Amino acid sequence: VPLAGKICVSIAATGDVSLLKEQADRAFSLGADFAEIRFDFVSPNRMQAAIDAVRGIRSKAVFTLRSKDQGGKFAGSEQERIEWLKKLAEQKPMLLDVELDTIKENDELADFLEKTPILVSWHDFQQTPPSDELAEILSEMRIYSNYVKVVTTAKSVEDSLRLLELYERTTGLHPVIFAMGDAGIVSRILCTIVGNAPFTYTSLEKAVAPGQLTVKQMRKLYDRIASRT
Amino acid sequence: VPLAGKICVSIAATGDVSLLKEQADRAFSLGADFAEIRFDFVSPNRMQAAIDAVRGIRSKAVFTLRSKDQGGKFAGSEQERIEWLKKLAEQKPMLLDVELDTIKENDELADFLEKTPILVSWHDFQQTPPSDELAEILSEMRIYSNYVKVVTTAKSVEDSLRLLELYERTTGLHPVIFAMGDAGIVSRILCTIVGNAPFTYTSLEKAVAPGQLTVKQMRKLYDRIASRT
Repeated sequence: VPLAGKICVSIAATGDVSLLKEQADRAFSLGADFAEIRFDFVSPNRMQAAIDAVRGIRSKAVFTLRSKDQGGKFAGSEQERIEWLKKLAEQKPMLLDVELDTIKENDELADFLEKTPILVSWHDFQQTPPSDELAEILSEMRIYSNYVKVVTTAKSVEDSLRLLELYERTTGLHPVIFAMGDAGIVSRILCTIVGNAPFTYTSLEKAVAPGQLTVKQMRKLYDRIASRT
Repeated sequence: VPLAGKICVSIAATGDVSLLKEQADRAFSLGADFAEIRFDFVSPNRMQAAIDAVRGIRSKAVFTLRSKDQGGKFAGSEQERIEWLKKLAEQKPMLLDVELDTIKENDELADFLEKTPILVSWHDFQQTPPSDELAEILSEMRIYSNYVKVVTTAKSVEDSLRLLELYERTTGLHPVIFAMGDAGIVSRILCTIVGNAPFTYTSLEKAVAPGQLTVKQMRKLYDRIASRT
């Protein structure tokens, strides 16, 4: 079996939202398998236009409306964010990204999303906590979905290697686990190769998050690996 | 075909040379396939003892007596180094590491090593030169051996990715190409996976060169990759 890692391109919806689909299509033509649309970069009054713009690619898309305390940019209130999350869910994207804290603290949202395929996410922008703590977070996430995303910050390559070992503790899950920062690049590349991440995140051109490779760089690496297996 | 990267452990022969074989055996038991013995760490009056100590593992060994201007530690004169290189060659190790400059500048040594399997090496401790320059160096190396080693210093992960692309320009060679430094770790791991390096270098415990992973860390990664292919 060729070891063919899948690639998701993260698109920060800044500027003209009518160009969102063109950006995603360009990423697909460069070798991305999926696109994450970061709706939190859209100003609230352009949200509906952005949703309309990406309707055609929603079956290959992760929709994300990241909260500020998890590193996002959404300018509206938390109540507005919850309402938009529901509207995003109604679009039936491949996956809707919802932070663990958001879903834990909003029973009504959890109920609303019962039938939506969600990617439960958790971020640490300071460090990579001990593996036992991360395993604990993963088991909390399991309650809500089999698709889980844990992103930490690597201070050394050892942090990356430790995250790659964490995949051994994710039976039954589709986990996307990697670290941000330069020392995290190893985990971004190997999460689909050493780990069984369903995809890794990349950028279209400029990195949206620290340490992100471009879709072109990652595609090249993964194609070479696939051709050798 | 499982993608099974091979691992060479680099052993700096410091301290009691009679322990060299024990160190190599420990590395083999931890999953190393080959051992590089860095004879340049040995004081000249202990060289013969060091050679005797590793006789039993020479068929799995790379013998290296690195010159000072290529980052080595040998304390004797250049003429002494050349004489020891010949004695190391007579041991018939799996590979004898000889710097490109050394062999270029010593026709007599080049003649002497005609029948010795050598690994022609070149290092840059400052940067990763443009790929065309590196390709030029590779074609100079080809004259002396199919086993070639090009090691640069990565200032960014882009340097690592560029080196991995250089493998596409090595037809007919067994190239070991990677970068030192934290940003080079990606290339140390992937040189046998994305590239076709016959092996990657690791340390037994503490890193001998900047960015080196331990044999244990690398073995774990490679075993996981092999089990997934």
